[in-house]
Amino acid sequence: MTTRITCVCPGKPILRERADMVLALARAEFPQVELSFHPQCFLEHGHFAGDDDARLAAFVETANDPAVDAVWFAMGGYGSNRIAAPAIAALGDAAHGKTYLGYSDAGTLLGALYRHGIGTPVHGPLAGDVRREGGDEAVRRVLGYLSRQDVPLEAGLDDRPAVAFNLMTLAMLVGTDLMPDLTGHVVLVEEVAEHLYAVDRLFFHICENLRGVAGIRLGRVSDVPENDRPFGMTEEEIARYWCERTGIPYLGRADIGHDAANAIVPFGVARSASGA
Amino acid sequence: MTTRITCVCPGKPILRERADMVLALARAEFPQVELSFHPQCFLEHGHFAGDDDARLAAFVETANDPAVDAVWFAMGGYGSNRIAAPAIAALGDAAHGKTYLGYSDAGTLLGALYRHGIGTPVHGPLAGDVRREGGDEAVRRVLGYLSRQDVPLEAGLDDRPAVAFNLMTLAMLVGTDLMPDLTGHVVLVEEVAEHLYAVDRLFFHICENLRGVAGIRLGRVSDVPENDRPFGMTEEEIARYWCERTGIPYLGRADIGHDAANAIVPFGVARSASGA
Repeated sequence: MTTRITCVCPGKPILRERADMVLALARAEFPQVELSFHPQCFLEHGHFAGDDDARLAAFVETANDPAVDAVWFAMGGYGSNRIAAPAIAALGDAAHGKTYLGYSDAGTLLGALYRHGIGTPVHGPLAGDVRREGGDEAVRRVLGYLSRQDVPLEAGLDDRPAVAFNLMTLAMLVGTDLMPDLTGHVVLVEEVAEHLYAVDRLFFHICENLRGVAGIRLGRVSDVPENDRPFGMTEEEIARYWCERTGIPYLGRADIGHDAANAIVPFGVARSASGA
Repeated sequence: MTTRITCVCPGKPILRERADMVLALARAEFPQVELSFHPQCFLEHGHFAGDDDARLAAFVETANDPAVDAVWFAMGGYGSNRIAAPAIAALGDAAHGKTYLGYSDAGTLLGALYRHGIGTPVHGPLAGDVRREGGDEAVRRVLGYLSRQDVPLEAGLDDRPAVAFNLMTLAMLVGTDLMPDLTGHVVLVEEVAEHLYAVDRLFFHICENLRGVAGIRLGRVSDVPENDRPFGMTEEEIARYWCERTGIPYLGRADIGHDAANAIVPFGVARSASGA
């Protein structure tokens, strides 16, 4: 049975040579997958993969296409929040049966889809992660998962519903019209390229705004820029501190991050979720 | 009549030579002012001017001292949010008659004080701004204002209540237990050292979380780091865009920012506010 996967870029564009690497890998190793990149993925408009209208149209067209089984976000960057609200409003029946997979900035769209109960949002590697060391494995993990192979999910998932987000993306999502209700959820967070004082500030913000969740698990916090002085706490001490202050259970580390090992986390209860 | 002003550092420490410059200027030009720096201002603990306990104790001691007329935040940086909740809980009667002045990270404390109706929170230059070009004028503006001289306030203030915040500080404050009710308020925001895509993301977040305000005015957005590609919108286009999307009136520019010209904005209705 063929799985049809289409890539779109709700934030920044993907380089064509990277898309070609992913297409070549899919052709060579996943004959059951029909993978394509929407032409919008290669547009450039300032910071973005095309202007808001172009990115919105590509996402809506793909999500509403009954021939597509899964929407794979090819890149993060920034921009999903500019198109998420009109996108949700434009989705029809065909959008409900799909899997939507990505992370980082694309988490805004995953969160909005989850809020509205549309399809299966899944945290996992982007197509553009092919560029990372070990990126081939990240691509294989996604293509395997989406074509219903037996791919391991994030190892700590249990019978409680879970979500996974980039910390900044989640911090910008809370309190907005796109934010899902995460009562009773285990929330996995990861961060990249932020100072530890900013991580501390973000934890303050999300913990104050996430009362009622089942707990927080900390993914990797990578590429922390060097500051003029040491912050004085590790990222895990930061997570523990704010969880304790706000009465949120801190549930340990999580196997997610801006790297090729970034594990797959279906939103909701993992055992009931499946690939496309 | 003597005005007694005490500086504290709820975030990062101030260098002693900068404190000495401010003390010298006060002695030379403001004989009606008794200015002092709490010894906590010079502590160092990782990122902070002393650990949380030390910063909390210094702020509470100063705010609760009936002999002090005004608390002047000497530096921003990061850290007010870690002490604001226990600080508010520890404030007594003497804290209510005071003026609290600063901005940037100190905005978290100003916001929390405003939420609880304690004293007069005022956005204005930090003592540490003496280091900036034109910093002497910023210090004079504060010392004049706090000693009830006729100092011009931010020129656009009208009969509506106003507040002023650093954009990131406000974004981290919304939805928390420290956030004041800003219904009907004109909200002035400024930012420094953030990419324009981050400014766009912050505007998304604050506009979604500030429905019911009278409007937003945009201060200076300075020291924007160079990105690998141009963002494609100016900071004013960003502010207009998100205000329009969320139905918040965009009310034009404001004379605030991370610079020596940063104007004074008493929280609430300006004409009823006064210095210490």
